[in-house]
Amino acid sequence: MEVSEFFLKLLVIIISAKFFAEVFSYLKLPSVLGEVIAGIIIGPSLFGFIQPEATFHLLAEIGILLLLFEVGLETDVGQIIKVGVQSTMVAITGVVAPFFLGFWLTYYIFDLALIPSLFVGGTMVATSIGITVRVLVDLKMQHTRVSKIVLGAAVLDDVIGVVILAVLYDFAVKGTVSIADTARILAFITAFLLLAPIIAKLFVPTLARLSSISRTKGMVPTLIVSMILGLAIISHKVGAPEILGSFAAGIALTRRFFLPLGATIEHYSHELAGKIEEGMKPIIELFVPIFFVMVGVSINFRVIDVGSSAFWNFALALTVIAIIGKLFSGLWVSGGWNKKLSTGIAMVPRGEVGLIFAEVGRRSNIFDDSIYAVIVFVVAFTTLLAPLALRYVMRDGE
Amino acid sequence: MEVSEFFLKLLVIIISAKFFAEVFSYLKLPSVLGEVIAGIIIGPSLFGFIQPEATFHLLAEIGILLLLFEVGLETDVGQIIKVGVQSTMVAITGVVAPFFLGFWLTYYIFDLALIPSLFVGGTMVATSIGITVRVLVDLKMQHTRVSKIVLGAAVLDDVIGVVILAVLYDFAVKGTVSIADTARILAFITAFLLLAPIIAKLFVPTLARLSSISRTKGMVPTLIVSMILGLAIISHKVGAPEILGSFAAGIALTRRFFLPLGATIEHYSHELAGKIEEGMKPIIELFVPIFFVMVGVSINFRVIDVGSSAFWNFALALTVIAIIGKLFSGLWVSGGWNKKLSTGIAMVPRGEVGLIFAEVGRRSNIFDDSIYAVIVFVVAFTTLLAPLALRYVMRDGE
Repeated sequence: MEVSEFFLKLLVIIISAKFFAEVFSYLKLPSVLGEVIAGIIIGPSLFGFIQPEATFHLLAEIGILLLLFEVGLETDVGQIIKVGVQSTMVAITGVVAPFFLGFWLTYYIFDLALIPSLFVGGTMVATSIGITVRVLVDLKMQHTRVSKIVLGAAVLDDVIGVVILAVLYDFAVKGTVSIADTARILAFITAFLLLAPIIAKLFVPTLARLSSISRTKGMVPTLIVSMILGLAIISHKVGAPEILGSFAAGIALTRRFFLPLGATIEHYSHELAGKIEEGMKPIIELFVPIFFVMVGVSINFRVIDVGSSAFWNFALALTVIAIIGKLFSGLWVSGGWNKKLSTGIAMVPRGEVGLIFAEVGRRSNIFDDSIYAVIVFVVAFTTLLAPLALRYVMRDGE
Repeated sequence: MEVSEFFLKLLVIIISAKFFAEVFSYLKLPSVLGEVIAGIIIGPSLFGFIQPEATFHLLAEIGILLLLFEVGLETDVGQIIKVGVQSTMVAITGVVAPFFLGFWLTYYIFDLALIPSLFVGGTMVATSIGITVRVLVDLKMQHTRVSKIVLGAAVLDDVIGVVILAVLYDFAVKGTVSIADTARILAFITAFLLLAPIIAKLFVPTLARLSSISRTKGMVPTLIVSMILGLAIISHKVGAPEILGSFAAGIALTRRFFLPLGATIEHYSHELAGKIEEGMKPIIELFVPIFFVMVGVSINFRVIDVGSSAFWNFALALTVIAIIGKLFSGLWVSGGWNKKLSTGIAMVPRGEVGLIFAEVGRRSNIFDDSIYAVIVFVVAFTTLLAPLALRYVMRDGE
């Protein structure tokens, strides 16, 4: 890509994202939906000006890391633990129900082969943590109890989604599943989730010291971005999604974070906390929308053969199952039906994770183009519908 | 490139840049030199961990845009105009002397063909505005008179460099030079330089208004980055270097900027100015070092055949000429020899512009590998030497 072409495309991405985000915000709709729609408009579905190119994909990945960092920063671990049981039940149900319903529909009703059917089940699993979190923030609901439950569940869900992808892929290639391998991955991820925030926390005094003795400009953003990247890389190494690393980095820097050994770790100053917030805010604000635009760019509606009734039968049936499966998960939440429904809906968007699953399926010839198109439809529909439905259900506040 | 590989490489780039910048700063040397050396170390010259890859090259280009924006922001146009005549003379001498000396050496002494000799002359022309400006900032000399002269001269120099490249390339391909084409490019660039800051300035009230009515986060950094990218794209379209566009964007937002029609344009508030500074600072601090690291990565010392005496004869002769040619340019500066010398030295680093020239020469088979290696040596030597020499000459302050 030429430099001037890159500049132009980047300009179109950030301007269209901002424009549609503002419009949606003005219409009292979640602005994240505007960003995804900007991507659909400038992407291959409509104008085709931006393709799912490697460079923008990489910038988008920085965006989602930064978003999860920001979410981590505002997460009160104590409260997450308090709703931990409910989160876990929501996550497990949100994995099991859509997986088996998706598999059942594909294998028994639509008569596909075993491996593609399992993969379709797999694409039903992972909630798009990015979409869910941004919608909650856009609706200013991020501090409600439902939000804590959903956040915990979405994180767990993402972990389970990655493990299922690994297991299914292994099964597709080798024809067997190694319980030992799966257990090892799960053990690594659990260890990482428990240790990462503590390690990151231990790094804070060094950060404070380096930032105070630094003779060059920009020490704080450089070190924070480095910490986010470093933990994302480690997270990937242990087999977990990279965003877990940046989430852990955020949690480590929460002011409300308490450790059992809290007394021995010098808590960092208000001044440093202010520097971190100030220093990261513009970077986060610049990169995060690129992620959501690229989600929209990745959804290519042109792969869908709108005239085919076979397509519509399968696509609509799978969409219903994708929604119902996740709505079940909300049943575990204590409180009124409103809370159960909100939780279920918040778990519905499949976003980028479903697309990754579909891409892996297509590239390894497990999916043909028609199944791929069905998945794209389900992902697009759940991603676009959930924010709207959530805004409708949650508008009374909680 | 895999996402995790991208994260790792990005981490290595920003951490090594920060580390060497700090070390150099501690040694009271310009930190920019540390960043270039970080690039040489992690690049193909030594560890080969980072190659001159497209993605990082593009991120580096954002870095140099942002640096020139920042420089523009701190530039007092009135003072630049005050030293305009001296700047212009410095720029012209800094183009003419190295071009003809380089051509003469290559054509008459080392007996190369006409086109390669002209191209070698061309690589001698353009001062690396990035290196020069950063060194002046690192040495806290950016507000001296010498700095104003050098800044104006380096900008002009860069424009002339691009025009010469276009003309020489045309000559190499077609065998003729169109005076009309050249004049048109020059006219476009001049018009752009005069109009761009005014257009950008007219955009400020819109910026202020949008930022105050915005319902989403991050309006200020988004609009500023968009403005920088937009002007860079226009700059490229009229045939000028892209950094001129971002420099113009910076100048437009200077608080000290005065227009003849200043009375009719509402000057923007202190509050907005604060938001712009706060919002852009971390983004600038994150991206700018990537540029200088990539300058180091682009300098591949391995292309140099250290055992060849032919190489050393040509490389050392050309280096001497590259330095002397630019030192001549300082003679126009009024004041003591110290000022003349500082100006001349500040114009010496060829950096990325020389490398672009060399790359164009190599790709179009005008340069063979041995001439290319000589140019790489000259670029590396002038880029690394000038900051050190400048620090030595300027240490007494001005």
